[in-house]
Amino acid sequence: MASSICVVGSVALDSIETQQGNAESVLGGSSAYFATAASFFAPVNLVGVVGNDFPESEKRYLQECGINLDGLETVEGKTFRWRGRYHEDMNIRDTLELDLNVFADFVPRLPESYRASELVFLGNIQPGLQSRVLDQLEGPVLTGADTIDHWISEQREEFVSLLGRIDLLSINDAEPELLSGKANVVAAAREILALGPTNLLIKRGEYGVLQFAADDIFAVPAFPLETVRDPTGAGDCFAGGMFGSLAEAGEITRSSMRRAIVHGSVIASFAVEDFSLNRLKALTREEIDEQFRQFMALTDFHTS
Amino acid sequence: MASSICVVGSVALDSIETQQGNAESVLGGSSAYFATAASFFAPVNLVGVVGNDFPESEKRYLQECGINLDGLETVEGKTFRWRGRYHEDMNIRDTLELDLNVFADFVPRLPESYRASELVFLGNIQPGLQSRVLDQLEGPVLTGADTIDHWISEQREEFVSLLGRIDLLSINDAEPELLSGKANVVAAAREILALGPTNLLIKRGEYGVLQFAADDIFAVPAFPLETVRDPTGAGDCFAGGMFGSLAEAGEITRSSMRRAIVHGSVIASFAVEDFSLNRLKALTREEIDEQFRQFMALTDFHTS
Repeated sequence: MASSICVVGSVALDSIETQQGNAESVLGGSSAYFATAASFFAPVNLVGVVGNDFPESEKRYLQECGINLDGLETVEGKTFRWRGRYHEDMNIRDTLELDLNVFADFVPRLPESYRASELVFLGNIQPGLQSRVLDQLEGPVLTGADTIDHWISEQREEFVSLLGRIDLLSINDAEPELLSGKANVVAAAREILALGPTNLLIKRGEYGVLQFAADDIFAVPAFPLETVRDPTGAGDCFAGGMFGSLAEAGEITRSSMRRAIVHGSVIASFAVEDFSLNRLKALTREEIDEQFRQFMALTDFHTS
Repeated sequence: MASSICVVGSVALDSIETQQGNAESVLGGSSAYFATAASFFAPVNLVGVVGNDFPESEKRYLQECGINLDGLETVEGKTFRWRGRYHEDMNIRDTLELDLNVFADFVPRLPESYRASELVFLGNIQPGLQSRVLDQLEGPVLTGADTIDHWISEQREEFVSLLGRIDLLSINDAEPELLSGKANVVAAAREILALGPTNLLIKRGEYGVLQFAADDIFAVPAFPLETVRDPTGAGDCFAGGMFGSLAEAGEITRSSMRRAIVHGSVIASFAVEDFSLNRLKALTREEIDEQFRQFMALTDFHTS
């Protein structure tokens, strides 16, 4: 039986412009992206907060994915809203508006039924709050966290304290140097692993993902895509697909971890094809399995 | 029996500064790097020019690698010299001095014994001169070329004409867009393949290599390295290792091409560990084979 997953993070209404079009007040936020991606593989318990403006239709969508919303609080006020514009180079984006609204006072509270979750992912929120989630868990098998440069710079002490308590850190290409002071990625990874996590995942966008573990490095390229309409949430979809795959495998081994990283890359490669969760809404398990085979064909030089 | 390889390009004396040290008047140039890298796998015919200041010891070294220097002209004057300084980010370098010297009047002439070479690589020189090499060949099995942004921008017509005559183009990450006008790498690759080559290799430095062929994409990550002392010549070592591996395989198939791309990556990963050809001078075939296995371990998610 698949292990249970819990994700804590934002649920947002995003307004996005890219060279390929735009979308207005669409479902977003780290826990929404993560949970939808993970739901292809295993049931997910979501923790977050929305305002009373949050559409019932989006809640229904998440529930139909098999996502448990007992941990999604609805409070008086407006949902977290973000408006952004991507450059032609989609690695660069401008935040045009950011209204935290009810998310400003978010304190994650796990329903009783979530506390035994085996795989737990802490989406990007204040590291102090991420630690408070850990306090509420009953012996998780794997804990992972994402963050952003802001917390590494501004709340380093809280963040380093969190690192001592988690198994896996998932960060962007520029963040290992920010965190360790080492420009070389191998040296940076060693320093970060020494702070606690047994696994470090470095997300390199169109270049793929690097995984560092104690005596092991794994690299998977990203699938070269012709259509990238909206890169928002790609990192959270990656983490969601990865944790989902691990939950489905029911065991954490070198091999299940590597397959999970590829599954994460597969889901992210679909997610960026359209705005918000639109592509994932239409995605089937057969398409995921076929794309996994495409990743094998992309990278295989082991056989003839 | 291994196929024969011919490489045409520069032979230089480089002076290099990096954060890890410096080297003065050391062996460099595209054909010297390529030929040394290829020589681990098969005999190589080198075409180039040096001045009468070029050290006999360097000629002897190349010959001891099994490199045929019948096509290396020595003319009155000074050898091509380049002086450069790398930034902490080794993707950025400043050229401090550039003296073409005898290389300014280089017109490649293939000795009779070279003309039946089966695998031919045209290092970065004027595209018109690259084409003149092709005129001197007797039915090569595989022709490949490297170039730089300067020729794509300034001699586009000659360069596009060359593309119609070669099998393989090897360029840097920024050049597909410069050549095709398409920012998306998949779209750019399609346009470039339509100009003639059946294979496009995109060198992405620390992110590895992408290969585009008619209906096939292959991606191999670079090996994450802790010691990069001098990245000069990495692209030529990549191409040399690749062509050497193909020559050794004795056939050009999807599988031998992919293994060759990994062999190229292996040789490049060693070359950057030290200045000039110093690391390759000490390299053994056993180390190459072991590093090939390390690349398998780095990328494998196919087996458990």
